[in-house]
Amino acid sequence: MVASKWTALTIGALEDGPQRFGEVRRKVEGITQKMLTQTLRTLTRDGLITRTVYPTVPLRVDYELTPLGRSLVAPLRALRDWSEHHIDLIQSARVEYDVTADVETVPVR
Amino acid sequence: MVASKWTALTIGALEDGPQRFGEVRRKVEGITQKMLTQTLRTLTRDGLITRTVYPTVPLRVDYELTPLGRSLVAPLRALRDWSEHHIDLIQSARVEYDVTADVETVPVR
Repeated sequence: MVASKWTALTIGALEDGPQRFGEVRRKVEGITQKMLTQTLRTLTRDGLITRTVYPTVPLRVDYELTPLGRSLVAPLRALRDWSEHHIDLIQSARVEYDVTADVETVPVR
Repeated sequence: MVASKWTALTIGALEDGPQRFGEVRRKVEGITQKMLTQTLRTLTRDGLITRTVYPTVPLRVDYELTPLGRSLVAPLRALRDWSEHHIDLIQSARVEYDVTADVETVPVR
């Protein structure tokens, strides 16, 4: 299963073509430098993106979706869309659950 | 994002209708009792499944997808199918990555 939150958002950020670390990081809200480094390494190892180093000064490093990575864009987008459309329902369910759970744990005096 | 491995597999197991803990656990390969308990609680809290207790002896507890949970089946199945179809490509990419990574770290004598 390749659908951790950061994997999905990083692949989404790379849909627009090759990008540098900083560009990806600006698009993936809330991701730390360490988490993005780790996510990019995992995606590279899984063959979903390539990491290309250009011998410029300073060095330029581009990350880009491979065909395999690009084939994952649609199923991940469907899941992201589902999450965005239903987040309100999930949050209200959580509030309701927490209230009921609290009532059940209040000792009867 | 609601796509941890166990969430996806547990929702998949509940596609066939209401089931008991043991039935779900038999369908979700490799899940521990503790992880299934936690996953079912998270899914209940998120409003994706219901937990119904029947006053039989012994008690019967059924888990069932809510309409919200059922609406997540298709995007999750698409992601599961993608993973199943591409797992070989991912595994060979990992082998290749690990070999290259090993070569780079071997000190030049």
